[in-house]
Amino acid sequence: MKQSQLFTKTSKSAPAEEQSTNAKLLLRAGFIHKEMAGAYSFLPLGLRVLNNIIAIIREEMNAIGGEELLLTSLQNPEPWKKTKRWDNSVVDMWFKTKLSNEAELGLANTHEEPITALMGHHISSWRDLPVYAYQFQTKFRNELRVRSGLLRTREFIMKDLYSFSRSQEEHEAFYESAKAAYAKIFDRIGIGASTLLTFASGGSFSKYSHEFQTLCDTGEDTVYVCKDCKVAVNKEIIEEQSACPQCKNTELKEERAIEVGNIFSLGTRFSEALGLKFIDEQGTKHEVVMGSYGIGPGRVMGTAVELFHDEKGILWPSGIAPFSCHLLAFPGGEAQAKITYEKLQQAGCTVLYDDRDVSPGEKMADADLLGMPWRLIQSGKTAEKKVVEVKKRDKETIEIMDIKTVIKRLKS
Amino acid sequence: MKQSQLFTKTSKSAPAEEQSTNAKLLLRAGFIHKEMAGAYSFLPLGLRVLNNIIAIIREEMNAIGGEELLLTSLQNPEPWKKTKRWDNSVVDMWFKTKLSNEAELGLANTHEEPITALMGHHISSWRDLPVYAYQFQTKFRNELRVRSGLLRTREFIMKDLYSFSRSQEEHEAFYESAKAAYAKIFDRIGIGASTLLTFASGGSFSKYSHEFQTLCDTGEDTVYVCKDCKVAVNKEIIEEQSACPQCKNTELKEERAIEVGNIFSLGTRFSEALGLKFIDEQGTKHEVVMGSYGIGPGRVMGTAVELFHDEKGILWPSGIAPFSCHLLAFPGGEAQAKITYEKLQQAGCTVLYDDRDVSPGEKMADADLLGMPWRLIQSGKTAEKKVVEVKKRDKETIEIMDIKTVIKRLKS
Repeated sequence: MKQSQLFTKTSKSAPAEEQSTNAKLLLRAGFIHKEMAGAYSFLPLGLRVLNNIIAIIREEMNAIGGEELLLTSLQNPEPWKKTKRWDNSVVDMWFKTKLSNEAELGLANTHEEPITALMGHHISSWRDLPVYAYQFQTKFRNELRVRSGLLRTREFIMKDLYSFSRSQEEHEAFYESAKAAYAKIFDRIGIGASTLLTFASGGSFSKYSHEFQTLCDTGEDTVYVCKDCKVAVNKEIIEEQSACPQCKNTELKEERAIEVGNIFSLGTRFSEALGLKFIDEQGTKHEVVMGSYGIGPGRVMGTAVELFHDEKGILWPSGIAPFSCHLLAFPGGEAQAKITYEKLQQAGCTVLYDDRDVSPGEKMADADLLGMPWRLIQSGKTAEKKVVEVKKRDKETIEIMDIKTVIKRLKS
Repeated sequence: MKQSQLFTKTSKSAPAEEQSTNAKLLLRAGFIHKEMAGAYSFLPLGLRVLNNIIAIIREEMNAIGGEELLLTSLQNPEPWKKTKRWDNSVVDMWFKTKLSNEAELGLANTHEEPITALMGHHISSWRDLPVYAYQFQTKFRNELRVRSGLLRTREFIMKDLYSFSRSQEEHEAFYESAKAAYAKIFDRIGIGASTLLTFASGGSFSKYSHEFQTLCDTGEDTVYVCKDCKVAVNKEIIEEQSACPQCKNTELKEERAIEVGNIFSLGTRFSEALGLKFIDEQGTKHEVVMGSYGIGPGRVMGTAVELFHDEKGILWPSGIAPFSCHLLAFPGGEAQAKITYEKLQQAGCTVLYDDRDVSPGEKMADADLLGMPWRLIQSGKTAEKKVVEVKKRDKETIEIMDIKTVIKRLKS
């Protein structure tokens, strides 16, 4: 994409009230726009990152048998009353609204109730199970405090998958495959090395639920890391047992972290309240065993910025970067830059091409702020020799190479 | 996709309160689920149709220079107060909600206000213009009555593009290119032949705005068609001038229609109220000239069903069908059907493969209801001869052909 055609501009400062690094950098780079506290719009470059994250999650959810659907935000109170989650004194983060006839509606903050009710229309026999259904859908949460940029917002896209199984065993097998899929997702996104499977309390239907916590000094959560097992436990668990649930190690290290995903065994809590049953091969009725599995792609994007930045700007991991490289045309190199741009695109590389009429200094500062994994400079000198100056965003080394070598390097 | 892995089931009847053909058929076929009056969830097959429509619109918006972004649903009242569109007595379809500190928020029913405010951060000079920004985003409209299935809902995805131009001339050139893009979109979706450019009243900044109206007996709108020009005028215009605006023909035919898109010249109404200005080459400040351009992919989906169905079910146009063909395995043909399924997929055809353990009659009835453009039957007889029985959904003719010929036919 030609940068001259991108409407967003970078800026030297972020709004004074922003405290978090992710919001400051993403706002300065023009990836997002602040509509109000806790609600950010995604501008073209930010939407590319968000869509890259979504594409990775979608592939891994499909790989474990997920079927994609799209539920509504507007919520009929009825199923929520049956599960006792409608009342604001129980769930304090509802946004509620009204039809013109004054009937009260909610804006979904999660979807266990409507999807359980929906499945009643499609599941009746053991033959209809298991079902794994997921969506990328906008959630609304009336958070009291929002000070962490994309890490905690009042409106955000969530990937939520719900599993419907015939038995606890069938459920547990899927739960394990979801756990593995989550690890793969965070690896592909580029935050896997800092992200730990974390034991959390499990509620009435299982001993544990699990969070995926990315270690990061600016995280809102506290976790306790077992160095031997490379897992963590959260605060609730440490208060109960103060040891690693896997190896019983009691020397756990307290660290700050960001919760980037969570998976829960729901047992029959929702299927019981909403009457979701199936008939087994012997003709006996059972309640369906459920699980839920969430990841917030926007929060993952914010987490990547918290982890990967320096004083000059963002360092996007290559799996989710808006473009694989940023090509800057310097004075005298404009004609050759056009050719380089076309060759890179023909080779299937995604390129942000800075063809703007601004100074080399401004282009380099913007390249550092925007954070593509590779920076390519086409100056008058390199143009003459039909080579390009190449630098990785996270390295100091500058190399000169021909376009074929550049393409090989970008694709490696 | 194997139909045995699809969780949705078809049903013989739709909820009694549904009056519209699109809702009845889409509910029976398991494409959508009714959450409440005017709010439908999209199930896997329905989401495939919706995404096919979205992909066509996105391609054509990108082709005329559109940059995709994603704005929030939650709305700060301030910009809406400045344009005098916050008060319920002026805009009666707001859904409003409150933060926990009682501050009032709105759920966007359109996005002129926030996008104009946003552009103030990125547009200041003539060099920054023109800008064409669009999104696929969920709108909320507190409609009084909703009785037309996907044609009028309280929550729906809308493609809304907003144009920002330096002058009326620059605006008009883009307005014409948007008009042409819309015609292309409706052609590619398969409803172009019934969809007419329709003159509507233009407000204070232009004589006309334009709707795209699909002629259909079950439409909510009335239009007046000029047979010579193949355009229409809407009710407002006929009351003013009772003639075709292009050829002055006064013999206009009254017809029912569904509005599937609309484009408006907004002039400086929003840029004036919200202070969106640019400095020209001579250093003079001007207000930005705006336009807005909407299509509802869900409504387009409902319209396609209203146009293309028979007593047995839906007939999807090939441009938006969930799969290009529906392959049914009949007794004795199961093994060969598997091979046919793989060959079709290898050739790049999208296939819904009915591998379920149900009767041929049930499979054929479902194929008619679900409405893929081609039905392929692999029976014991055709399996023996390594051929397939092929029928178009909208034709009676049954043909027998080998797999190579099938692939050629599907791709033609």
